[in-house]
Amino acid sequence: MPLKRKNPPFENFAVPGFRASGIASGIKKNGKKDLALILSDKPAYVAGLFTTNRVKAAPVLLDLKRIKKGVSRGVIINSGNANACTGKAGYKTAEAMATLAEKASGAKRGTIMVASTGVIGVPLPVGKVEAGIAALAGSLSYSGLTGAAEAIMTTDAFMKKAISKVNIGGKRVTIAGIAKGAGMICPDMATMLAFFVTDANIKGPALRRALKKAADASFNSIIVDNDTSTNDTVMIFANGCSGSSEIRPGTNDFEAFEKALRGISLELAHMIVKDGEGATRFIEIELKGATSNESARKAARTIAESFLVKTAFFGGDPNWGRILAALGRSGVKMREEKVDISLNGVPVVKKGLDTGREKEAAKAIKEKEVKVSVDLKMGRRSTRLWTSDLSFEYVRINSAYRT
Amino acid sequence: MPLKRKNPPFENFAVPGFRASGIASGIKKNGKKDLALILSDKPAYVAGLFTTNRVKAAPVLLDLKRIKKGVSRGVIINSGNANACTGKAGYKTAEAMATLAEKASGAKRGTIMVASTGVIGVPLPVGKVEAGIAALAGSLSYSGLTGAAEAIMTTDAFMKKAISKVNIGGKRVTIAGIAKGAGMICPDMATMLAFFVTDANIKGPALRRALKKAADASFNSIIVDNDTSTNDTVMIFANGCSGSSEIRPGTNDFEAFEKALRGISLELAHMIVKDGEGATRFIEIELKGATSNESARKAARTIAESFLVKTAFFGGDPNWGRILAALGRSGVKMREEKVDISLNGVPVVKKGLDTGREKEAAKAIKEKEVKVSVDLKMGRRSTRLWTSDLSFEYVRINSAYRT
Repeated sequence: MPLKRKNPPFENFAVPGFRASGIASGIKKNGKKDLALILSDKPAYVAGLFTTNRVKAAPVLLDLKRIKKGVSRGVIINSGNANACTGKAGYKTAEAMATLAEKASGAKRGTIMVASTGVIGVPLPVGKVEAGIAALAGSLSYSGLTGAAEAIMTTDAFMKKAISKVNIGGKRVTIAGIAKGAGMICPDMATMLAFFVTDANIKGPALRRALKKAADASFNSIIVDNDTSTNDTVMIFANGCSGSSEIRPGTNDFEAFEKALRGISLELAHMIVKDGEGATRFIEIELKGATSNESARKAARTIAESFLVKTAFFGGDPNWGRILAALGRSGVKMREEKVDISLNGVPVVKKGLDTGREKEAAKAIKEKEVKVSVDLKMGRRSTRLWTSDLSFEYVRINSAYRT
Repeated sequence: MPLKRKNPPFENFAVPGFRASGIASGIKKNGKKDLALILSDKPAYVAGLFTTNRVKAAPVLLDLKRIKKGVSRGVIINSGNANACTGKAGYKTAEAMATLAEKASGAKRGTIMVASTGVIGVPLPVGKVEAGIAALAGSLSYSGLTGAAEAIMTTDAFMKKAISKVNIGGKRVTIAGIAKGAGMICPDMATMLAFFVTDANIKGPALRRALKKAADASFNSIIVDNDTSTNDTVMIFANGCSGSSEIRPGTNDFEAFEKALRGISLELAHMIVKDGEGATRFIEIELKGATSNESARKAARTIAESFLVKTAFFGGDPNWGRILAALGRSGVKMREEKVDISLNGVPVVKKGLDTGREKEAAKAIKEKEVKVSVDLKMGRRSTRLWTSDLSFEYVRINSAYRT
């Protein structure tokens, strides 16, 4: 089953059987779009992944209940307010939001999911949401997904959307995704959201499996500043409108679907890093030669999370000592005298020792994209993670008082 | 046994039976002091704690062997070069350094410990060390500990020393400590060193126990930027010159000794945080109501390590949402609806909800010292950690290219 990937022009950013819209309801004080609805014409299989933070926003708590049914008509999303740390009142607001969206769109009670992103700890203005939802339902269209992508932005510098079309069993299957990232000028933003819609014919468990795999290789492999928000949500809705035969796990069809979903997940995830707070460089960490997948990830993550590594890359300094020190404290099995490190292809450490090629490396990492390749030479496991540097702008954004 | 703590004027910064000196040997290009020797008149019991980083500097590897004997005459320390990531040649250099110090001071082979701090990955110039050690041995004096404290500084803004005198069994026992911290303008500095000398009559296992307890409550409870260096070393030498009876674990004497050692350890640790890179605020995190000591530490540490919490404090923003989000992702047992948070005494969160007193809190945290008090109300365990904020200056220092 050949995988055909195209990025059609955005006027074709649509998936059969899904209508959507995004409007300005007044939650954001600047008049920008802040309310989105994505609606499947018919009940869709749904799968979701939610924040592992023990402090979960009200919409996340609601979705965790609703997703158990495995079927949904879509999702109502607001930006500008996270509806997090808002207690029982916040939970009622999330429920009210869903009920209003269900009534306005003719969906059954309990079939619409909810997501919120924005400031923590401030009550979500229900009146604005109520008026907004009426307008939203009236403006739904099959080409409305771009409007929804715009409405879920908080201070993202650019809109994040990606689409993939795959031939499965002779039918053209479309998967589209929108996301919002960690562009948190308003410092309490609770943060990452991504929504996928597809006309694939794929049931709940298979859908969940594909989503998990795609998210692990993308959204779970990016690090901006080590924090997990109270609102992080990734959901996929599959309505079967492509008319393809059912995509079952263990088949080539499933593989093609999973690969396509992973592809657009990765595109969106990279956009989130590139639009990371104050990011001036996009850094890929390739970690090879680990004894297990877990230790590969742990080592890569310790490098990606290091304040010292991130500031060095901001300064364009090929400071391999910090990378080696991060590996050492990561707790994974390693021996200093085996480690090789290269930066954008220039070897800076061979068998744990300086190669004397720092000047060359300094030139090589002047690029906007930096690849850090580490080989522990202890085993055969590898991983890749993506992160951004730590800049003055990051500190400026995050130290700005919320007014 | 009453604990009497005094900070005598620094001209009295001395411990009976210990001579010391610090000189400039030329390792530092700016002509500042960079080589120190601390020597006990007679063999002293020694205990040490070393970096947990798997990438360990050559002097740490040497000390880990030597400390097994439990007895030592003292330590030779250089600043300006970490002798880390320098392979077998680096290990030989560390050995040579010890041997030269032993010969120059008349100590037996294998009885002098070694520590280094400074740039990673660059060979330590043995010639300079050799010439320096000859000069050093000639300048040893009983009032030389301040000179040693000066010589172990790298880019510390101020010298770090503390002294305590305790009456034990009718005798006056003195404990003095010197430290160098995380003032790493030269970005590869491998970092924290602290040395204690005491005339207490206390043997190896008891000494180690007291040191471990003191370090856990001080050096292991401070966080500047989450990194563990390749050179971190804390050592204590006890030569028994006070003539007091032996201090045995489980006695009031031991408690008095341990408390005094903990006191000066904490003083030095707080100095390290206050002199942290780019620090503008000294932040105490008090975590109460945890179900275990481990989870108290884990929760406090997640707050202290959060980029978002640290930048908020730099900006003077009482951003409790970030503290609550950090608690939530720390993985410890907690329930959002139980949590209380106050900032310099102003309650900002009660039972997980906003108290509406942020303006008051914003005023309260304008101070140079900020106390974050968190009560999880899940159990009876508590801890305290100290950290600094994350400022523009931190990024400037750490992104500066090493030239």
